[in-house]
Amino acid sequence: MPRKMCHCVKVRNYHVDSYGHVNNAQYLHYLEDARTDFFEELGYTLPELGRRDIFIFITESHLEYQKPARMGDSLLVYGWFKHLSSRKAVWQHEVYNAGNKELVLTGSITGLFLHHDKIISIPKDIRTAMNEIYFPQDR
Amino acid sequence: MPRKMCHCVKVRNYHVDSYGHVNNAQYLHYLEDARTDFFEELGYTLPELGRRDIFIFITESHLEYQKPARMGDSLLVYGWFKHLSSRKAVWQHEVYNAGNKELVLTGSITGLFLHHDKIISIPKDIRTAMNEIYFPQDR
Amino acid sequence: MPRKMCHCVKVRNYHVDSYGHVNNAQYLHYLEDARTDFFEELGYTLPELGRRDIFIFITESHLEYQKPARMGDSLLVYGWFKHLSSRKAVWQHEVYNAGNKELVLTGSITGLFLHHDKIISIPKDIRTAMNEIYFPQDR
Amino acid sequence: MPRKMCHCVKVRNYHVDSYGHVNNAQYLHYLEDARTDFFEELGYTLPELGRRDIFIFITESHLEYQKPARMGDSLLVYGWFKHLSSRKAVWQHEVYNAGNKELVLTGSITGLFLHHDKIISIPKDIRTAMNEIYFPQDR
Repeated sequence: MPRKMCHCVKVRNYHVDSYGHVNNAQYLHYLEDARTDFFEELGYTLPELGRRDIFIFITESHLEYQKPARMGDSLLVYGWFKHLSSRKAVWQHEVYNAGNKELVLTGSITGLFLHHDKIISIPKDIRTAMNEIYFPQDR
Repeated sequence: MPRKMCHCVKVRNYHVDSYGHVNNAQYLHYLEDARTDFFEELGYTLPELGRRDIFIFITESHLEYQKPARMGDSLLVYGWFKHLSSRKAVWQHEVYNAGNKELVLTGSITGLFLHHDKIISIPKDIRTAMNEIYFPQDR
Repeated sequence: MPRKMCHCVKVRNYHVDSYGHVNNAQYLHYLEDARTDFFEELGYTLPELGRRDIFIFITESHLEYQKPARMGDSLLVYGWFKHLSSRKAVWQHEVYNAGNKELVLTGSITGLFLHHDKIISIPKDIRTAMNEIYFPQDR
Repeated sequence: MPRKMCHCVKVRNYHVDSYGHVNNAQYLHYLEDARTDFFEELGYTLPELGRRDIFIFITESHLEYQKPARMGDSLLVYGWFKHLSSRKAVWQHEVYNAGNKELVLTGSITGLFLHHDKIISIPKDIRTAMNEIYFPQDR
């Protein structure tokens, strides 16, 4: 049975723009931090992947900002794969405000794996690990 | 005849991640800078809008990363409206590498206008100005 | 007996510049995150201080970059007060690489307390808490 | 006769923290952007230096925050060398608010030149160019 992963972040003073809301770009950092930690939990750190000359190239991001978050808020960033093929992985993300339980953001991020700058099939061991958090979804 | 607006940015050393590519989140800053300058060119600065208690809330961002950009590159960020209704504005963006003319990124950003935290119809004077860069598009 | 406080941070992909080193400005964010968490551990969150109309204004920062840090490194950010007077607080920071134990950065940050934009004496309850991590030092 | 160089920056919405002031770390980015453009004006871009395997390592930063700056402000970042020896260069910076002419920040940044990760004497051609903006100062 697959599971969804969760990463907790704290909204810092400088994540917030002059409106007092977390800036729209900052969420892409939150999601990237979450995915990095999720891969680490699955057994793969970015430096280790780097030593295998593998890196992940983001080809698409799609965010829907639902509610603003503010300085001092704790956010729960959930993530799982909604699509996994031999070459392409699509993350689905949901971000909740840990305080008031509001849904703050939904988003999806598409990535490809590169080896020496060429797109490759996702290596088998990594794909097996990724399956742990794969919830197939018709797109 | 409407026109497309253009903003030039320079890729800084710290916009680039450990892969040597502009980080995926940084592009949202480039697009935000461009839109801020476009509004200024149309006659509206953010502080002035703030004094009218108007601010623009981003509800959706959708980016497609086409080619990586690197430190020292100059990027041309184009922007225009592809959708404008009484309450909603959708920007279309294209980012080109000024050096090799490659298309680096395409994206769209959806925004609403708020007055004292309530969604409002786009004020008439601002809407008139926005029409200058409106290229209607069936969606 | 006073104690030094410690905050752990992980170097993210986008904290690193095109040289592969953590960018010089990023350390000020690490130190700010640490101080925010230290204050919280002492019983004061920024939003709570904000509700008392108190905020902390940084007047000086002095950093010495000792060794570069890289993506994936875990850093230990230590902090304590080396100077505390009625109106001024000077933090001392040391940042170590948790992996190889290298000293990465030393720095000091000077702050004042403001109430409705006027410099004030540090409120007594906050000063008492701050004393817990005060190691007086001749300057 | 040496001259001081000037770089203009615009305070963006996301440079500002929840207090409405430019965040303390953001100034290090403003200064870095200025120095990068100053070097370019002197004839040396970072990618060109990179092709000669030369890079500049910041060893020390010292900033004094004089007055807050706010979203929409235009800032003038001045820079020149106050110390230049065979191996070490110390920049002096002053940042002014272009609107109200207030002094916003003063700072100094110390840098070394590295070639293949070893500290080197500043290459002669670069040193000659740097002399154009050198105002010797007893320290």
